[in-house]
Amino acid sequence: MVPQELWAGVDIGGTKTAVVLANAPPQVLGRIEFATQPENGPAPAIAQIEDGLRSLLAGAGAAPGDLAAIGVSCGSPLDPDAGVIQAPPNLPTWIDVPIVEILSRGFSCPVRLENDANAGALAEHRFGAGRGFRHVVFLTMGTGLGAGIIIDGRLYRGATDSAGEIGHVRLTPRGPVGYHKPGSVEGWASGGGMAQVAAHALAAAYRKGEKTVLLDGRNGVVSAREVGLAAQAGDRVALRILGISGRKLGMALAILVDLLNPECIVIGGLAMRLGDLILAPARKVLAREALAPAVAACRIVPAQLGERIGDVAALCLAMDAARDAAPQAG
Amino acid sequence: MVPQELWAGVDIGGTKTAVVLANAPPQVLGRIEFATQPENGPAPAIAQIEDGLRSLLAGAGAAPGDLAAIGVSCGSPLDPDAGVIQAPPNLPTWIDVPIVEILSRGFSCPVRLENDANAGALAEHRFGAGRGFRHVVFLTMGTGLGAGIIIDGRLYRGATDSAGEIGHVRLTPRGPVGYHKPGSVEGWASGGGMAQVAAHALAAAYRKGEKTVLLDGRNGVVSAREVGLAAQAGDRVALRILGISGRKLGMALAILVDLLNPECIVIGGLAMRLGDLILAPARKVLAREALAPAVAACRIVPAQLGERIGDVAALCLAMDAARDAAPQAG
Repeated sequence: MVPQELWAGVDIGGTKTAVVLANAPPQVLGRIEFATQPENGPAPAIAQIEDGLRSLLAGAGAAPGDLAAIGVSCGSPLDPDAGVIQAPPNLPTWIDVPIVEILSRGFSCPVRLENDANAGALAEHRFGAGRGFRHVVFLTMGTGLGAGIIIDGRLYRGATDSAGEIGHVRLTPRGPVGYHKPGSVEGWASGGGMAQVAAHALAAAYRKGEKTVLLDGRNGVVSAREVGLAAQAGDRVALRILGISGRKLGMALAILVDLLNPECIVIGGLAMRLGDLILAPARKVLAREALAPAVAACRIVPAQLGERIGDVAALCLAMDAARDAAPQAG
Repeated sequence: MVPQELWAGVDIGGTKTAVVLANAPPQVLGRIEFATQPENGPAPAIAQIEDGLRSLLAGAGAAPGDLAAIGVSCGSPLDPDAGVIQAPPNLPTWIDVPIVEILSRGFSCPVRLENDANAGALAEHRFGAGRGFRHVVFLTMGTGLGAGIIIDGRLYRGATDSAGEIGHVRLTPRGPVGYHKPGSVEGWASGGGMAQVAAHALAAAYRKGEKTVLLDGRNGVVSAREVGLAAQAGDRVALRILGISGRKLGMALAILVDLLNPECIVIGGLAMRLGDLILAPARKVLAREALAPAVAACRIVPAQLGERIGDVAALCLAMDAARDAAPQAG
């Protein structure tokens, strides 16, 4: 029997954690998902990761020692070299968790840890909208906003694993708060920031007596998702909110294009759902703000992997870990 | 006789052009400098480059065919792959000059063309303040402002050779003009920008009747160099001007640190002469604006190669071209 290469991916989020088992080409053999419940500390979740992985392996007729590698994707900050998760904002009780050591011991295989923006960049570069490009920026646009950078086909982490923190860059002296910073890219253009932009726009609409479905029977607190749904239905106030955030996203894209001159910027999260509602104003500002040849050379596209991106990202890490651990071909 | 590897460097600027001949370790064997006079078109200058190089070779007892490689450093825009200079602002008559083809034919050796920010980054990384670091940003701070980026020890050019255009990034909606853009980093913090900041500050000083050596017998137009000299002598208005430009330089450094997380930012040109007069306010803003671990991991240092940087930069290109052309060691 030809030995089959088996990879495991673990995607640890603040809300839920997924464990996937796959083999080449890659093909998913099984998947388990559970609530992370960070309020209970890391121990129960790690036990569920290990149990889940063992049960997936058993289901595939394999033993724990058969894994070629495990990849773990998690929010920043973390130390990829030491393999330690360092209490990310969405997992405040996960203080210095040596996840790589724990899983290496349990499954006797290489384990790689990477932050979710970097892992997502690998996934979209290899299997999504960034395929075939050498220089790619992957922008995550969820509650927060960050970027993973691929240069010459390889992940660029920076000196202390914090390259790509475009969300922390200040666009205006004042403004909505993101990444603890008023007027930052994350403040203006992330999901969390968009909710602040919306609150401001809705207060103005209320004062002017302007009609919007976002105010119907509400106190003015709406999510980016609700703004998107209202905008898709043609609500003018919702479209105005997306225009504001979209134009600020365009300023951020211009910084990325002028500084990194990538072939492609792939935008995940909200951009996949909102599409041109947010990308059209962003592209317009980008064309005005950044150098024309660099703008012409750069595609701005929504991510392709959708909800699967966390699984694929973690599996990419496992594949890389397995490849790097394999004896070199002569 | 052991054959000696000979490299030639050509540094083409808007005012003057230098031709240098060197051998290992590297050691300069000879140097010729002449006025570029772009108003006469490229032909006479190229003839002087070729004549100068032949005379340097003859002086070293070598023949034109003995060169291992030639490196050419010049202002942007240019096409490094095609080897063509594309009418940079300081050489407006050098329209699509195939300098690599011309010199390859004349000297039968590999020729490499690179823009001056990139070539300067190579030079400071290899022989200057960036030695020993993997991820380095080199900031040129002359009439204009640009950057060369070294990632994993290698030059990063981007998709269309325009990576590192931090000078084009907008910091404020309005402000001094640089790179055709009001409020840009080049507008606020380059030599040309500083002169605009100075004009504004001097007008205010004049209105308030404030004393400054910069207004003595003048109409308010001063250069960045004069501002620097006055600041070194303790002139308060000059110090205020450098504070304004320095703080905006700090905003630019914060973008570089948050996005690229380099180990080192080397600043050439004005920063070498002005030192802490401009770097102290810049560092203060950087510490406030960028992520603390990334700031802690990044040294901000003046360039070390001084006036020699153009020579060393062009020679670095020649060394790389010779290395890449040499038969690979088994």
